[in-house]
Order: sequence, then C-alpha cells, then structure tokens
Amino acid sequence: MNSPQAKTGIHNRLEVKMATDLLPDFPPGPLDCYRKGSSFNWKSMKMLLEDPEILKYKMKIWNLFEEDQEFQHANTTLSLDEQRRVAIRRLYRLRQLYKITPEEIMEDTRKPYAMVSSLFQYEPSLAVKSGLTFDMFTNTIRAMGTARHYDFIEDCEAAKIGGCFALTEISHGTNTKEMKLTATYDPQTQEFELHTPDFEAAKCWVGCLGKCCTHGIVYARLITPDKTDHGLHAFVVPIRNPATLKPFAGVIVGDMGEKIGLNGIDNGFVIFNKYRIPRENLLNKTGDVTPEGNYVSPFKDPNKRLGASLGALSGGRVTIISIGVCYLMKAIPTAIRYAAVRSNDTPVTGSSSALIENQYKQWQLITYLAATYALKIFSDFFSNLMADFQIKTFLGSNKEELAALGPEIHALSSAAKPLTGWIARDGLKQCIDICGHYGYLKVSTLGEIRNNTDASCTYEGENNVLVQQTSNWLLQLWRKGKGSPNEFKTPLHSISFLADAADILRSRFMAVSVEEATSPKTLLSAYEWLICWLLVSTEEKLEKLQKTGADPFTAKNNSQVFYARTLSLAYAEHVILSKFWTFASSRDVDPALANVLKKLCSLYGSWSLEKHLALLYQGGYIRGPQASEMLHEGILSLCAQLKNDAVSLADAIAPPDFILNSILGKSDGKIYQNLQTHLFQKPQTFERPSGWDEMTFQQSKL
Amino acid sequence: MNSPQAKTGIHNRLEVKMATDLLPDFPPGPLDCYRKGSSFNWKSMKMLLEDPEILKYKMKIWNLFEEDQEFQHANTTLSLDEQRRVAIRRLYRLRQLYKITPEEIMEDTRKPYAMVSSLFQYEPSLAVKSGLTFDMFTNTIRAMGTARHYDFIEDCEAAKIGGCFALTEISHGTNTKEMKLTATYDPQTQEFELHTPDFEAAKCWVGCLGKCCTHGIVYARLITPDKTDHGLHAFVVPIRNPATLKPFAGVIVGDMGEKIGLNGIDNGFVIFNKYRIPRENLLNKTGDVTPEGNYVSPFKDPNKRLGASLGALSGGRVTIISIGVCYLMKAIPTAIRYAAVRSNDTPVTGSSSALIENQYKQWQLITYLAATYALKIFSDFFSNLMADFQIKTFLGSNKEELAALGPEIHALSSAAKPLTGWIARDGLKQCIDICGHYGYLKVSTLGEIRNNTDASCTYEGENNVLVQQTSNWLLQLWRKGKGSPNEFKTPLHSISFLADAADILRSRFMAVSVEEATSPKTLLSAYEWLICWLLVSTEEKLEKLQKTGADPFTAKNNSQVFYARTLSLAYAEHVILSKFWTFASSRDVDPALANVLKKLCSLYGSWSLEKHLALLYQGGYIRGPQASEMLHEGILSLCAQLKNDAVSLADAIAPPDFILNSILGKSDGKIYQNLQTHLFQKPQTFERPSGWDEMTFQQSKL
Repeated sequence: MNSPQAKTGIHNRLEVKMATDLLPDFPPGPLDCYRKGSSFNWKSMKMLLEDPEILKYKMKIWNLFEEDQEFQHANTTLSLDEQRRVAIRRLYRLRQLYKITPEEIMEDTRKPYAMVSSLFQYEPSLAVKSGLTFDMFTNTIRAMGTARHYDFIEDCEAAKIGGCFALTEISHGTNTKEMKLTATYDPQTQEFELHTPDFEAAKCWVGCLGKCCTHGIVYARLITPDKTDHGLHAFVVPIRNPATLKPFAGVIVGDMGEKIGLNGIDNGFVIFNKYRIPRENLLNKTGDVTPEGNYVSPFKDPNKRLGASLGALSGGRVTIISIGVCYLMKAIPTAIRYAAVRSNDTPVTGSSSALIENQYKQWQLITYLAATYALKIFSDFFSNLMADFQIKTFLGSNKEELAALGPEIHALSSAAKPLTGWIARDGLKQCIDICGHYGYLKVSTLGEIRNNTDASCTYEGENNVLVQQTSNWLLQLWRKGKGSPNEFKTPLHSISFLADAADILRSRFMAVSVEEATSPKTLLSAYEWLICWLLVSTEEKLEKLQKTGADPFTAKNNSQVFYARTLSLAYAEHVILSKFWTFASSRDVDPALANVLKKLCSLYGSWSLEKHLALLYQGGYIRGPQASEMLHEGILSLCAQLKNDAVSLADAIAPPDFILNSILGKSDGKIYQNLQTHLFQKPQTFERPSGWDEMTFQQSKL
Repeated sequence: MNSPQAKTGIHNRLEVKMATDLLPDFPPGPLDCYRKGSSFNWKSMKMLLEDPEILKYKMKIWNLFEEDQEFQHANTTLSLDEQRRVAIRRLYRLRQLYKITPEEIMEDTRKPYAMVSSLFQYEPSLAVKSGLTFDMFTNTIRAMGTARHYDFIEDCEAAKIGGCFALTEISHGTNTKEMKLTATYDPQTQEFELHTPDFEAAKCWVGCLGKCCTHGIVYARLITPDKTDHGLHAFVVPIRNPATLKPFAGVIVGDMGEKIGLNGIDNGFVIFNKYRIPRENLLNKTGDVTPEGNYVSPFKDPNKRLGASLGALSGGRVTIISIGVCYLMKAIPTAIRYAAVRSNDTPVTGSSSALIENQYKQWQLITYLAATYALKIFSDFFSNLMADFQIKTFLGSNKEELAALGPEIHALSSAAKPLTGWIARDGLKQCIDICGHYGYLKVSTLGEIRNNTDASCTYEGENNVLVQQTSNWLLQLWRKGKGSPNEFKTPLHSISFLADAADILRSRFMAVSVEEATSPKTLLSAYEWLICWLLVSTEEKLEKLQKTGADPFTAKNNSQVFYARTLSLAYAEHVILSKFWTFASSRDVDPALANVLKKLCSLYGSWSLEKHLALLYQGGYIRGPQASEMLHEGILSLCAQLKNDAVSLADAIAPPDFILNSILGKSDGKIYQNLQTHLFQKPQTFERPSGWDEMTFQQSKL
C-alpha cells in the first residue's frame, strides 16, 4: 500500500503554537481524572490525525458557523417545513460567507473533502443540499456536457439557478435498463419531449427537487424520430421558475414527505407531461442528436456509453465512507465522555465508579473507538487518493495509470462503503445503549446521528448490491492471476499477497501468546489466509451451482451469503487494518502516540477477525480452543489497557462542542449540570400542555 | 416444558364462521401470486397462533379505534406538544369506550396481556400512558399499601386523579442503594418532609410526570426522628392539583423533553423542596412509622424488605417481551409484503422478479420471520404463565408452588427480555434495509417502530444488567446440582437436561445430512451441549479470576463477555426453540400448518445456533468443515423453501391495515398506488415552502 503522509504531531515550535491557538485546553471537570492519567497528549494526536493545515481549515469553517446567527442550533424541534426553510437559508448564507475557489483546490486537493466533512459534522442536510444544488449539478455538466451548457454552470455558480440529479424511478432503483421516462426528439421544433408514462416511472427521491431546485440533470431514454431507443441519456431540464419557485407547465413536481432523518433535504418526485425542452439541453459529450434527428456518438457499444455516462457518479462512495467516519467521530466521543462520568450503578457494591470501568461497557465501546480510528485513517487515505484521481482525470493526465487505478478504487470503495456504513450503524446502536435513558433524549443527538446514518446504507448504491462488485473484481483477478501472478500487482497493492496464495493456504495460526495472537502481523496473516480461503470456497461454490444447472446470474446470486459477501468484507477489513498498521508503525510518529495507536490497531484487527472465527475453524486455519481463547482474552485486555486513554482518544477525534452539539458529549463532562441548565432554560419544560383544560382529571368526563 | 395449548386452527364449523367474520379476504392485487401459491391457509394459521377468543377480543379493541374519530392516524407530523395532547385525549376516550373489568379477567386471565398487545400495536404511547396512569399506580398501591390507601385507588379508577411511578434519580439508575431523596418524619405535624438535596437526586424519566399526572408513587429514604435511615420506601405523593394541573407549592416538576421515540409520553423529573405529605401516605405493607415516629416492620433484614417492595415490579419484563413481538409482527409483514412486490433490480437480466426471490434478501428477512414466530409462541406461553402466577399471588393460593416458580420466571425473563429486544432491534434494521429508500420514508412507519424499540432495551432493567441475573441463577443451580441432580427439577423444566450434563459434555455433533443438521432434535441437543459447556467455562473463568486475586464482584463482572452473557442468551434461545418445537409438533396441529411451522422452527434454531458456531468448534463439539457447511446450506435451503409461504406467514401475524398503518405494508400490496394517493392527497406535497420568497434564486442575494 502507499506510504501514508505520517506526521509527528507537535514536533516543532510552529506546530506547538498552532495547536495552542486552534485547540484550547478543556475546562476543568469530572473528566479530569482520565485526562490527567492519559499516556499521551490529545492535541498531538489530533494534529497527527488531521494534519495541521486541514485542521486549521476545518476550524475556520466551523468558526464561521459558530459566530453567525443563521447557523445557531435550534432550541426546539422544527416542523418539516421549518427544517427545509432553515436548510435553504443556511445554504445561501454559507455561499455568502465562503465558497471554495479553484485556486484553493489546486493549492491543496484535500480541501474539498475537508469542506464536506466539516459540513457533515455540523449538519448533514446542509452538506447534502450544498453538494446537490451546486456541486453535483455543475460537475455533471462539466463531465457530460459541452461548451453549449456552460451558461448553466455560470448561472448555478452565481446561484441564479439551483440543481438536482434525477435518475431513480418509483419502481426501479438500481436497474437503469428498466427505466421508463422517454425524451422523444421532434425535428420540427428541434425539441425533446419528456414524457412519464405513469406514476411508477416518476423520477423520485431526488434531493432538493421537492421544494426548491430550478433545474435538474434528468436521465431519460432518448428516442429519435425513427423510433429508435438509444437508452438513457442525461438532459438539463428546467423545473421551476427561479423567480417564483413555481413549476413550469407540464411539470408535476412534489415532495416525498418526511423521512427517518435528513429532513432538511426536500427529496422530491417529478412527472413530465409531454414537456418540451430545447435540443441543446441534451448533455452531449457521449452522444448527440443532430437538428434533423440523427443520433451520433463516439461509442459504438451502447453499454460502454452508459458506463461512461454513469462514471460521473464515482467519488460518491468515497465521500460516504468519510461521512460514516464523521458520524462516528461525533457519536463515539459522546458515549465515551458519558461513560467516563456516569456512575456504574451496581446493586452489589456500595461505591460507584464510572461505567467505562466495567469490562462489558469497554467491550461495547472501546472496540468501536478503535474501529473509528481505523476508519478515519483509511478514509483520509482514500479521500486524498480520490481527490488526486479526480484532478488527474480532469486534467487528462496519466491516462494509463488512472485506467489501472479505476477498477481497484471501484472495488475497494464498493466494499468499504457498506462496511463503514454498517460499522457506523452498529456503533451508533452501542452508543445509544451505553447512554441508557439519556441516550434516548433528543439532546443527546445520538438518535439524530443514527437516523442520518441509516441513509448511508442505501444511497449511492445499495450496500448489498455494492459488495458484489468487489467480489466480482476479486474473483476475476483470482482466475486470471492463477497463471500469471503479475495480475495481482495492482496500483494500490491491495491484493499483492495473492501471488503467494498457495503458501498462504497451507499456513496455520501459530501464535502462542495473547500478545502474539493480537499483533497486527498475526492478524494480517490470518486475513490473508481468510481471503485466499474465501476465494477458493466462493469459486467452488459458484462452480458447484453452475454444474447443477444454475445460470451464471443465479449462481452468482446464490453464492453471496456466507461466501462472496464475506469475501468482500474481509478484503476491505484487511486493507483498513493494513493502512492502520502502516500509519501506526511509521518511524515519524512520536513514540507515545505510536504506542496507543498500535494498541488500537491490534484491537480493531482482533475484533474484526473475531467475527470470522468460525470460518478460521471451518477452513482448518485454527484448531482447538487456544486460538479463540487468546483472541478473546486479547480483545478484553486491549480494551482494559486503552480504558485510561479513552477520554483523550475521544478528545483527539471529537469536533468542538458547538459542532458536537450534545448535552452528553460536551467536553466539560458536566452532564447533569448541562442537562439541568438546558431543561431550566426551556419554557416548555414547565409549561402546562396546550389544551390542558381538556385534560384535567374530572370525573364528569367519564 | 409445559405442554402448549395447541389449537387446530379452523377445525369445526363454528371456527370457520368466526374466521370468515373476523378475517375478511384480502383485496386482489400484486400479492396474489404468492398468496395463491402458499402451502397453507393463513386464516387457519392465525387462529392457531392467536386462539379464536383472544383474536376476537383484540379485533374488538382495534375496531373501537378504527371507528372512533379520536383514534384516527394523523396525516402530518405533530409537534411534541400536540403528540402529548393527543395521547392524553385518547387515554380518556379509551376509558370512556372500554375498560377491562375484574370479571373479564377472572373469566380469561389472558385478556389483560391481550389488551396491552392491542394497544401497543395501535400506538405504544397510549399503551404506556394507560398502563402508568391507571394500572401501575393502582397495582402498586394494592401490592404495597393497606386499607388506608384505597381512596387513591378509587379516585384513580374513576379518573379523578392520575398516577406515575418515580424511582430512578438523575445520577443513579439501577443502584437503589445510592438514591438520595429523603422522607423525614416529623412527629409534631405527623407528616413526612420530602427533600431533594440537589438536581442529581431529582426523580427523573418518570412517564406521565412531565405534564399531566396528579399523584406519584415516589421512592425515598425514610428517616425517623432518631435520624435512622430505613432505606427506600414508597409514598403516595400529590404532585399537581387535579383541577388545574398546576404543581403544588414545594414541587418543581418538569418535562424531560423530546426523545428518540415514544413522544406521546411526557417523561418528567421532579424536585421536592421540603415538601410535606401526611404520614398515612407511606405505603405501609412492609414497614410503617407510628404517629410518634417509631419504625415498625415485619421484615428484620432491610435487604429482604427492599426485595419485597421491588417485587411489585415483576411482570414488566414479560410485558416487554410481548411488546418486542408486537413490533416485529408489524415490521416483518411490512417488509415481506414490500419484498414480494418490489422488483429485484439487477443490471444483468432484462426481466425483473420480486426482491424476495433473491437469496440474500431471504436470508435477511425470512430468518427474522422465523424468529418472530418463535418469539410469538414463546411470549404467549410466558404471558399466560405470568397472568396465572399473578392471579395466584393475588389470591394468596399455591404459595409453595409460586415460591419455586418465582426465581425461574425471574431468570428466564431476565434473559428473554434482552434477547427479544435485540432481535427486534436487529430485525427492524433488516426491514429498513430491505425497503431501501422507501423504508426511510416516515409513512413506512418502520423508523417509528425502530425508534420505539430502542426504549425496550433500556427500561425495566438495562439489558446487560439483566442477563447477569440469569447466569447467576444458572451458575448457582449448577454448583448445587452437582451433588444433587434434583436441583435441576425446576417448575418450568427449563434446565432438567443438566442432570445428564456429564453425558452431554461428552456428546458430539453427529448429523450427516443437511436435513438432520437443521432438525430441531439436533439443534436442541447442540444447545444442551453449548449450555453445559458454557456453564463449565464460565465457572472456570470465575475461579481463575478469583485465584488471581479478583474480588467476587470484579470476577463476576470480568466473566460476562464471551462467557456468562453468552450462557444466559443460549439458555433463553434453548427454551424458545424448545417451546416452538413442542408447539409445532403437537398432534392437534393441522398437518399443513405443522409442516410450515416445523420449517420455521428449524430455521429459527439453525440461525440462532449458527451465531455460536465458533464456540461449538472451540469446545470440540464440531470439527472440520462439514457441520458448518451443512448448517449454512440448511439455513439457505429453509429460507428458499419458506419463500413462497412468506406472504401468507406475514398475513397470519400482521394486524389489520388500520393498525399496521404502513404504506409499504398494506395488505393489498399496491405500494406505488398507495404512495401516489398519499402524496397527491397531501397539500404539503405541492405547496411551496413557507418563506419561499426568501429562497428564490436571485443573484442579488449573494
């Protein structure tokens, strides 16, 4: 794997000053005992994880929010209508205050991802709205349109219009071939006529379409006057009058209504009733229609054209990985700070100590803390790689390098996005659990983060469809590589070990102590064996199914559970563990930080691998009780070793209090005082319910 | 285990008529293909599962709701204040329409549980409000008070006053010994002075306290004039004026604010500032103070007195198990109906088929369908047993039988409540996942059910504290039973197999085919081995920890993860599987129903056991790859076999559409039409957002 840009934390005077300016000390309080007993400096850790420049940039954006009236957190729950209004107002206000420039991006390509992360940690609806209204609309036109569409980009960047992206139809999500919206070319008027045959063909779930966008990138089947269906193409379609926000005649556009989360975003549906748009609104980089109605395209194979046009979507998954990390970096510190203050009620002893002293709670929480570190390091690596990839693609340079890198990025992101989403979702569950009744309060914000997390498991490719992409890539290379191990030399080196598959498959778990069993070296070897074994087993399963008469599609479908799906996840876990280990063991890292990072790395790896224990037995990699016992003991021992560092580890990843915005997670640790202040400041706390006079207890009523 | 009251479904003309009256046929629609292909009659299954009398009773309550204006579902999301108001209005309206009578209960002791289930499936906030305001208040007074308190019961039953139950304090949840509220007796005025020393000692989380109760059962440390602290006692405390709902002077009472779910319930906190109540308000069955200030109690050991006074809480856990089942019986049918209609988009084939045809989706969903059946059968058995237990306790009969049954009920409910809560929570996750974007819509109601489910994992005993109760009981009997196997002869026979532990521990997994591996007989034997092995391992672990210097409390805490916790869950899983098997294999059951129930039983058992595979390997019960492979193959094969029956199985457990109240789960299966109607009928769908003029896209703004 590529060597990470390891930093040493606070290693010179300039950085010390920066850390002091950026990261003020925490106020004294009930978390002091753990903070004082920590084995490392949390500011150094934060600088190491975030990189000083990026941290400074994020703090700049967060300070904008904290100091501006429009971005203050609401004290009460807003209605759906109010939530949408607030999101739109903030969208414009943000645009007034700050807009990332191409110069800034060229100076540091990591900034757009840092910007997105900052927005997501503040409020995801604003982040999504900003991305859809401005960035995705203009980027899609840049990628798929030509000079004739540049006015749209200019208008959008000046916020004269706002965009959305419409692909999914009511009864078809991922199967683009089944979509029914047509765009029929009329040479008489040189227009396309968009027509939605029925409600099931309505474009739907489109973010920002419900209430406020003016234009959409809309995918429709292009039909030429000779009745030929040329398949899906993208069009720029005016939806609403920018001055009145009323839809144009022929457009029925509405709101999908309230959702589990992300309610600042107005997801919408649209039905076109013989609605006409100019010929030029076809995004024509990969196919065009002449004024006379002839179809022209540089691609001969319509499948390839579709692939190229959908290629504009890549990058979304990498962003969603970072969103999962953003959510975990809020939720885990909240739960850890709570667990370090809340008393561990036990009916047995008279004295109470903090929840985090309890082994079971450590197992619930510190394992996810380790996973958060692992995913943070992986996600930053992947975002930086992706930023670089996108810039090079845009500049048209290194075409061959990019062509080789593309499939590996696709495969890795297709497994890492589901894995991150699931870890985030399960981690949120543990956080809510740990915080007990208080976690159930809205002001814990854990419920809100969980409800937002759900969406990440569905959009930009349903998780269970995605993991198949990864196993397909792995199996394909596995077959090719058997004869020529050079196939395993991929740009990210994520499967180079497959060249030694024969030896690996003969290897066995050899650790003889708890320390050895949980060492990253042991764990990485075990993962290599697991991936090889799953490749062999999945291939056998596929062959067996095909021999018994299954067609390739059914065979593939019926080899997912227990086989291909596990393979994809193990592949991603191995890459994440390997990245973490490279980061933690880099020579530049301060020893105090390296020491705790290595423990986290061991814990993440042991905890992940433990879920595959049965497979390690099944394939004969381990035998007898010792390996399990060592792994189990190791996990609990690492949790215990990290327990005193957990608060500082939380401090190093938590955003500032204003962004964290949780009564339970506030950095001063004064849970009860903060709750009391919150309750006593709200008039609703003590008011009688409206209509109280209908609710008094009076016998006459019954 | 006790033999279940197996019913034959529609086996005589009376029942056929009843089924026809109670259960109308479904309208034709897209679910017809699966319904027609089902191997059994869903009405027969429903009559078998529910018992005709209980089903009739539930339908009666549901019909009350469906036909009354006050119980119609809101079309828009209500504010917190409105949600509370609606819950209270419905509480009174229900009281006007119907109130269960003692005669009804004596006639059929299952009715109170059936009533609670009906309310929970309609709307949990109403169920909780009704339970707390009336039942828990009066039942606690009956259990812990004496004749001098019967006026409170009378007033409450006449709805002149409304109750709540206040135990938890802000900084102490389960540790009753740490609680700080005091009730100091003043012989001069013959009053108790209640005083809350600080906010951390405020009673909190009390349902119905936030806005509307008038009286509370409040637990406080009783202090006599000689300054002796007699520990926690319960008092009836006037909180608000019933005529104005304003708190009395000296009472600071407020609302805890919005929660993740259950927002119809006004959870509150209360602070007493030298607030005085009459001496007689002490609930004095287990301890009293004379007018002069002397403490008198029939119990000498204050621990036993506390135990007896907290005993009034039993039954709550059994109810929560049934609540989990209620939620699953709404969510699982919703997801199955959706999955049987929604097309399984695949980029590979041109033709689409339903999601439920996909093996991965079957694994996600049909396993939880099987678990829902298993838990439904178990929960009904347990509720009936508990109802019987409570009646006998109330009547004071069969004291010795009850004394023996009590601890086993406690142990079983302490493991089954967490297990059910976790299965419900994880099942909800799968349902939301299956329904993709649509599951994320509020009108799927899946998010709401999930948000309500969360609470079940915390209240009435935090899950992770509870599972220790079970393992403590098991380990204690295990030690005792080694010398005298009679100890294993408990009233519910849940551990009678432990008498053969030595043989069981020597046994090995012997199945040689997929069918045999997934047969309930094989699975039950495997569970028996697993429980014995976990008892041995946990005991060894405890001894090892104590030998290395851990005190008993720490040793117990540090043997939970991977040991005692797993033991408790395996114990509950074994009982549930065993109950299911007894039910399915009863001679009275119609063969068509028995056939499908046996498959569900095998699936539930295989799926549960599969989670312990690594332990089966670790302890040497299985070796080599075959057992795993057979179990995996069996799970997928059972899912496939049950796939065509899944819709009818869903029909047999789903409540009527009005109660299910989900666009995705409606019994006609017309997802898209129902969604369209819903969207087009809501004015908000097409309205511009309020304040739209501030949101138009105008360059001048930026």
